[in-house]
Amino acid sequence: MLHNIFLLFVGLLSLEHVSFAEVPSSQIVNITETREYAERMQNFTRTNFEHLEKMRNRSIRVARSCKDLRDRYDEREDGVYYLTTGNGMLYQTYCDMTTAGGGWTLVASVHENSVYGRCTVGDRWSSQQGNNADLPDGDGNWSNRNTFGTVESATADDFKNPGYYDITAEDISVWHIPNNFPLEFWNMEAAAVLRYHTENRFLRLYGGNLFQLFKQYPVRYNVGSYGDRGPAIPIVYDHGDKESTRMLYGPNSRNEFEPGFITFRAINNERAAMAICSGVKPTVGYNTEHYCIGGGGYFHPEQCGDFPSFDYDRLGGMQGWSAPREMTEAAVLLFYR
Amino acid sequence: MLHNIFLLFVGLLSLEHVSFAEVPSSQIVNITETREYAERMQNFTRTNFEHLEKMRNRSIRVARSCKDLRDRYDEREDGVYYLTTGNGMLYQTYCDMTTAGGGWTLVASVHENSVYGRCTVGDRWSSQQGNNADLPDGDGNWSNRNTFGTVESATADDFKNPGYYDITAEDISVWHIPNNFPLEFWNMEAAAVLRYHTENRFLRLYGGNLFQLFKQYPVRYNVGSYGDRGPAIPIVYDHGDKESTRMLYGPNSRNEFEPGFITFRAINNERAAMAICSGVKPTVGYNTEHYCIGGGGYFHPEQCGDFPSFDYDRLGGMQGWSAPREMTEAAVLLFYR
Amino acid sequence: MLHNIFLLFVGLLSLEHVSFAEVPSSQIVNITETREYAERMQNFTRTNFEHLEKMRNRSIRVARSCKDLRDRYDEREDGVYYLTTGNGMLYQTYCDMTTAGGGWTLVASVHENSVYGRCTVGDRWSSQQGNNADLPDGDGNWSNRNTFGTVESATADDFKNPGYYDITAEDISVWHIPNNFPLEFWNMEAAAVLRYHTENRFLRLYGGNLFQLFKQYPVRYNVGSYGDRGPAIPIVYDHGDKESTRMLYGPNSRNEFEPGFITFRAINNERAAMAICSGVKPTVGYNTEHYCIGGGGYFHPEQCGDFPSFDYDRLGGMQGWSAPREMTEAAVLLFYR
Repeated sequence: MLHNIFLLFVGLLSLEHVSFAEVPSSQIVNITETREYAERMQNFTRTNFEHLEKMRNRSIRVARSCKDLRDRYDEREDGVYYLTTGNGMLYQTYCDMTTAGGGWTLVASVHENSVYGRCTVGDRWSSQQGNNADLPDGDGNWSNRNTFGTVESATADDFKNPGYYDITAEDISVWHIPNNFPLEFWNMEAAAVLRYHTENRFLRLYGGNLFQLFKQYPVRYNVGSYGDRGPAIPIVYDHGDKESTRMLYGPNSRNEFEPGFITFRAINNERAAMAICSGVKPTVGYNTEHYCIGGGGYFHPEQCGDFPSFDYDRLGGMQGWSAPREMTEAAVLLFYR
Repeated sequence: MLHNIFLLFVGLLSLEHVSFAEVPSSQIVNITETREYAERMQNFTRTNFEHLEKMRNRSIRVARSCKDLRDRYDEREDGVYYLTTGNGMLYQTYCDMTTAGGGWTLVASVHENSVYGRCTVGDRWSSQQGNNADLPDGDGNWSNRNTFGTVESATADDFKNPGYYDITAEDISVWHIPNNFPLEFWNMEAAAVLRYHTENRFLRLYGGNLFQLFKQYPVRYNVGSYGDRGPAIPIVYDHGDKESTRMLYGPNSRNEFEPGFITFRAINNERAAMAICSGVKPTVGYNTEHYCIGGGGYFHPEQCGDFPSFDYDRLGGMQGWSAPREMTEAAVLLFYR
Repeated sequence: MLHNIFLLFVGLLSLEHVSFAEVPSSQIVNITETREYAERMQNFTRTNFEHLEKMRNRSIRVARSCKDLRDRYDEREDGVYYLTTGNGMLYQTYCDMTTAGGGWTLVASVHENSVYGRCTVGDRWSSQQGNNADLPDGDGNWSNRNTFGTVESATADDFKNPGYYDITAEDISVWHIPNNFPLEFWNMEAAAVLRYHTENRFLRLYGGNLFQLFKQYPVRYNVGSYGDRGPAIPIVYDHGDKESTRMLYGPNSRNEFEPGFITFRAINNERAAMAICSGVKPTVGYNTEHYCIGGGGYFHPEQCGDFPSFDYDRLGGMQGWSAPREMTEAAVLLFYR
C-alpha cells in the first residue's frame, strides 16, 4: 500500500513535467526539485480529513473581503475562503494573506484562451460576439455584474467573482501566473512572471473598485482618441522590476511605454479601448493593442481579443510587436484590498 | 476617516448617473434623490457584519421555494435566500416577499445582450448556434434542466436557476427591469418598467411550472402554424396598466395584440416559435417576433435572438415595428408562486 | 386540496410521455408503469421538509470523494452529496453508492447538443472555436481545471466538476443515459443504455485521474498517427454486454473495434485525437471519429464535435457509419472510484 502511494507520487511528479512543458525548464527545476513542492504535492493527493475540515470550517467566518477576514478573524494563511456580498450571495475565492501585510481578495483573472481567436467564445474580457463596431462595449464585463469561472480554474480560463463589483477597496495587486498553474502553488516564487501592487489608495477616488472605475472610464470603442486614458497609478514590485517589466513586451512596444505603472482604459490609434496596461504607462505611439489587455467590442481587423494583439507578428515571442510567451501564456490575476 | 467615507459615497452617487445613462432622466431623479436610495447606498458600501451575519443565517432555513420560506419561517423581507431542490442541490435566488402577499421565487431572467445579435453567444433563451433550421429547438433551455447566470447578475445577463424546473407552482409574476439595475434596488418603484402577476393558478393545469408547460407546448420551429399558441392568461398589474403595456411595443405591433395577458408559445407567420408574449395576447397578424421573447432555433433571416426582432426598423424605439428602448434594454424577470 | 394534488400528479405523468418522446416506447412503459416510478414522482413534486433537511444535512459531512463518504460515514444511498477539494472548494455532485460496492463519484458528462454542430458553442469536450488546426488542443478541457454545468443538468448539457482533477482514484465507471433524463431516475434500470466499470485499478499508473492521464496522452490534433492510443482497459458490464455494445455503433464501425474495453486517446486516419472510445478498443481501420467521443480542436471537415462524426451518413441511426439514436442522444457520465 505504501509502495503504491509512492509510485503514484513519482508518477505525478513526472506528469507535472508534461503539464509545464511550455514553462522554461529552469523554472521546472526550481519548482519540482524543492522539498517544499514535494511536501505540498504529497499532502495534496491524499485525503487529509483534518485539512478538509479546516477548509470547511472557514465557512463559519462571515466576511465581505479577505481584508475583513484578516482584520476581524486574524486569518493569515493564503488560500481559498468564503465571502458574502452585501446582498447575501455566498462565494469562494483566493486570499493572498502575506503580500505587503495581506488581506488581498482575488476578484478576477484575464486568460487568453487563444491568441489567434478574434473576439470568439472565451474572450469574455473583450467580446464573444466577433469584432463588431455595432457592439462598442463588447461583452461589457468590465462594468457589469456578470460573473464566470471558478477560483481553482482562474489560470485555466477567465474568472470574475462577485467581489469585483461588491467589495469597496483602496488598492490593487496584480499577479501574472503561467496558464494552468495549480492554485496550491500560486504563492510560490517560481509561479511569478510578474507581481506588483499599488499603495496610494487610488480606488477611493474612483468608486472603490474596478466596476465603478470603468463606469467612469468606459471600455468602449470610439469613446475617445489615442492617448486618452484613465488613471496611471505607480506600482510597488513584489516580483520583477521596471527592467523585467519592459522585457515582457515586444521590442517595438518598449519604445511606447514607461514601466512602473498600471494604467486603466487606454485608447489606441484606431479608437479601440483597452482596460488595463499591466506594469506600464503608454507615453507615445499608442499601439496599445500590443501591450494592454481586455477591451471593448471593436478593434482593427485581426486585433480583437482579451490580449488584443500580443502576438501581432505571429512569432511566438520577442520580435517586432510580439510579446514573449512568458507573458502571452500567463493569466493576469487581479486582487483588491 | 469619516471624511473619506463621505467622499466615496458622493463618488458613488455621481457614478450611478453614468451607469443609468440610458434610463430616462426623470427616473434617475426619482431614484437617486430619495432618502431611501441614499440610506440604502450608504449601508451598502460599508461592511456591515451584523447584516452579513443575518444574510448568512438565512442558510439555516431549509426550503424548496420562497413560498416555503414565507409559509414555514414567516420570512417577509425581499432579498436573496437559500433554496434546495428535491434532489438536494443548494442554490441562492431572490424572493419577492411583498407583492400580493409575497412568496414569489425568481427562477429566470431573459436578457437581450445585443439586439443585433443573431442567435449568437448569449442568446440562451433561443439559440447560440446561429439561425439554423436543423436545430428547431435551438438551445432548448425552456424545457431542459440547464441553468446559467447568478441572481445578482440577472439584469446583466440571462439567468436560470434550478427553481425553474424544480418548484411546483401555481402562478407567475413578471418584472421588466432596466438592464444592469442592481439587485438591492429591484424592489423600488423606479426600477419597474412593467410588473404584473397571474392569480388564477393556471400552472396547476400545465404541470406546475414553465419547464413542464413548455414540454406540452414546445418552443420549436415548425411545430405549428401562425396563430397556434399555448395558454393566454389574464394578468393583474403591479406596475403599469393595459395602456402603458401597449406603449411598450412598436406602433405596428399594437394593432396585433390585446394587452392584459401573458401568452405562452406563440407561432409567427414563418412558423417560428416564441416562448412568452409579456403583457399581451396576439390576436391578428401574428408578427409575434416583434413583441414576444425567447424562441426555438430558427427564425426568418435577421430575426433570431432572445428578443427576436424587437428593433426590426433599427430605429431604437417607437417607430414601425421597433419597440422603445425602455423595453428592449430591460431584462424580463420570471417568478413562480 | 388533495384533489388538486392528484390532478397535478396525473398531469405530470402524461407530460413525461412528451419529454421521453424519443425514447423507444418499450422503455417508457418500463419506467412510467412501475409502482417505483409512481412513488418517486409523487414524493418528488411535493415539498417534503423532512427530505430537504436530510439533503441539507449532508453538507455536514466533509469528504473529497464519494468513496470517502462511503468509507468514513457509511453513506449508502445514491444521490447528491457535498464534496470539498484539497484546496477547500465546495461543490455538489452525484454519488453512485450501489454499483459494485458503491463509492463512485460523478465527475463529468459528455453531452452532444447538436450532432450537426461543428465545434461550436456547447462542444466543450472538443472545441467551441470552430474546426481549427491552429488550435490543436481545442478547448483543452480534458486536461485543465475548467469546470462547467451542474449535477442536475448533467444529461442536458456538458458537465465537469472539480472532482475531475481533484480526486485521486483507481477505477472508472461509465453510464450512457438518455439526454434530459432526470437525476432522480438515473439509477433505474430503464435509464441505462450502457453501463460498465473497470476493476483493475489502472488509474494508479496514470496519475490517479483522467486529468493526469490526458496530460500523458494529450487529446491534441497531430500528436500521433492512426492507431496510436493510450491505455485500453477491460471493462465489467453493469448493463449490457459485448454484443449489445457492438450494436450501439454503426454497422461499418463494428468491423473496426473489439468490444469489452474502454480506450483512452485514440488517433484517427487524419491525425485527429479523440478522448474516449466507450466500450470498445479500436483494432483496425481507425475511423475512430465514428465511435470515440471528445477531441482536440481539429478534425476532418464536418467531423468536429463532442461526438465527432456519430451520424456521418445523416441517417439518424444504424446504417453505414451512423450510430443509433439510442447512443447519439444519450449523455456519457464518467465516475471515479
